[in-house]
Amino acid sequence: MTVKQLTLPELTEACGALGIGGVGLWREPVQAYGVEAAAKLVRDAGLTVTSLCRGGFLTAMNPAERARALADNRTAIDEASALGTDTLVLVSGGLPPGSRDLAAARERIADALSVLAPYAEERGVRLAIEPLHPMYASDRCVVSTLTQALDLAERFPASQVGVVVDTYHIWWDDQAPSAVARAGASDRIHAFQLADWTTPLPAGVLNGRGQLGDGAIDMREWRARVDAAGYGGAIEVELFNEGLWARDGVDVLEETARRFIEHVL
Amino acid sequence: MTVKQLTLPELTEACGALGIGGVGLWREPVQAYGVEAAAKLVRDAGLTVTSLCRGGFLTAMNPAERARALADNRTAIDEASALGTDTLVLVSGGLPPGSRDLAAARERIADALSVLAPYAEERGVRLAIEPLHPMYASDRCVVSTLTQALDLAERFPASQVGVVVDTYHIWWDDQAPSAVARAGASDRIHAFQLADWTTPLPAGVLNGRGQLGDGAIDMREWRARVDAAGYGGAIEVELFNEGLWARDGVDVLEETARRFIEHVL
Repeated sequence: MTVKQLTLPELTEACGALGIGGVGLWREPVQAYGVEAAAKLVRDAGLTVTSLCRGGFLTAMNPAERARALADNRTAIDEASALGTDTLVLVSGGLPPGSRDLAAARERIADALSVLAPYAEERGVRLAIEPLHPMYASDRCVVSTLTQALDLAERFPASQVGVVVDTYHIWWDDQAPSAVARAGASDRIHAFQLADWTTPLPAGVLNGRGQLGDGAIDMREWRARVDAAGYGGAIEVELFNEGLWARDGVDVLEETARRFIEHVL
Repeated sequence: MTVKQLTLPELTEACGALGIGGVGLWREPVQAYGVEAAAKLVRDAGLTVTSLCRGGFLTAMNPAERARALADNRTAIDEASALGTDTLVLVSGGLPPGSRDLAAARERIADALSVLAPYAEERGVRLAIEPLHPMYASDRCVVSTLTQALDLAERFPASQVGVVVDTYHIWWDDQAPSAVARAGASDRIHAFQLADWTTPLPAGVLNGRGQLGDGAIDMREWRARVDAAGYGGAIEVELFNEGLWARDGVDVLEETARRFIEHVL
């Protein structure tokens, strides 16, 4: 998504040229290219698919909507399996229209996970609950802190359900560092994503994630926390940013790689 | 601020006509009108000043800036005292330019409070730390949760430093209900403010607070929590909303009173 202006072939070529060995993919471009074709493309390029984004949106109360969401998540799990990644990122969903009950919405997520998690495990895929910044609590994700995500994940085996540590969403939270340690202790850090916090936020607050080093987050400190928690997986950079999307994608990828070296390695 | 399009005389008259017995004031219009004149105006109208907004911005590292901030907060305390309110709301301040250290910024707030709190108490004014939504953590307020605000406040006597419970800022936080109880148990709820959470958020995310009943927050549930915590003070409605500001102020005040009756009483 950081360089969504690139086609999948352009992306794999640019990753190869920069020595980037892994890539997190989103479902929409993968589906547009064809799941099997995308899997072959990245495999032939020698790339690891670090995660697939995203399943989730599991908070609907309406039975037909819930059934559709479960079916879509099974499809997402199948796609993750086909791509050869072991991690499907879940954005849990917001409040249904007219509802003001965050706690009940979180329980419906747990209910859905109890159906989806065994299905995922059978296909070698772990579900990774991503807490989203509290500014998305009403319309996108009622899971707002890493602690809440862990409270949900720990109802299931770590081989089935874990969490995403994304600096953009949790950097402000003084309880997040201990939650990172807690997540690591039970091997539940299934993905580690970076984006910087820059202001002013754009309208809608979706596409204002900052390039590494441009904002308020100490990336190396978060990396050290995740390292100390025993995480040995990929580090993904996920920037939703209109400014970056308007530029040449290869140029943005090169810049991101430089920033990664400067601020994370 | 909900009806900032009204002059202070228009505001006091409209409050009287609607049977509203108290009003929270902001410093800028009070200063423009004259502090003593404003105090006389609201007193003659039979209105209670429920709180003064706002002091704070106590996170600067630069010594001259810190001295200016302390001086400005002493002035704010004096103004609160002159207006006859016992509560000065503090918005603590964001990260200084170039800093990424939230914890250190929070410590500088505590340092400043140790200077300001005795000064305030001598003048019959309590300082009320307002946690602001985490989307303001970098540029406006490094105190993002009610728990953090209490952790700061509890270093001081409750007669000196308490907290603001504002639904807009804490509604998403599953730990806030227990923090409300904790705050009430030590008599530290110094103000209770309402605004609803509506999306999409506007650019800059400052002026998108929803009219009561328009958004995701169960106002009556929060009122019950604050009641159960033993709070017996005023309930303020504080809406920063470009749409409301563009309308006739008396009309907005009437609407707000109706919504208060419908969703809070």
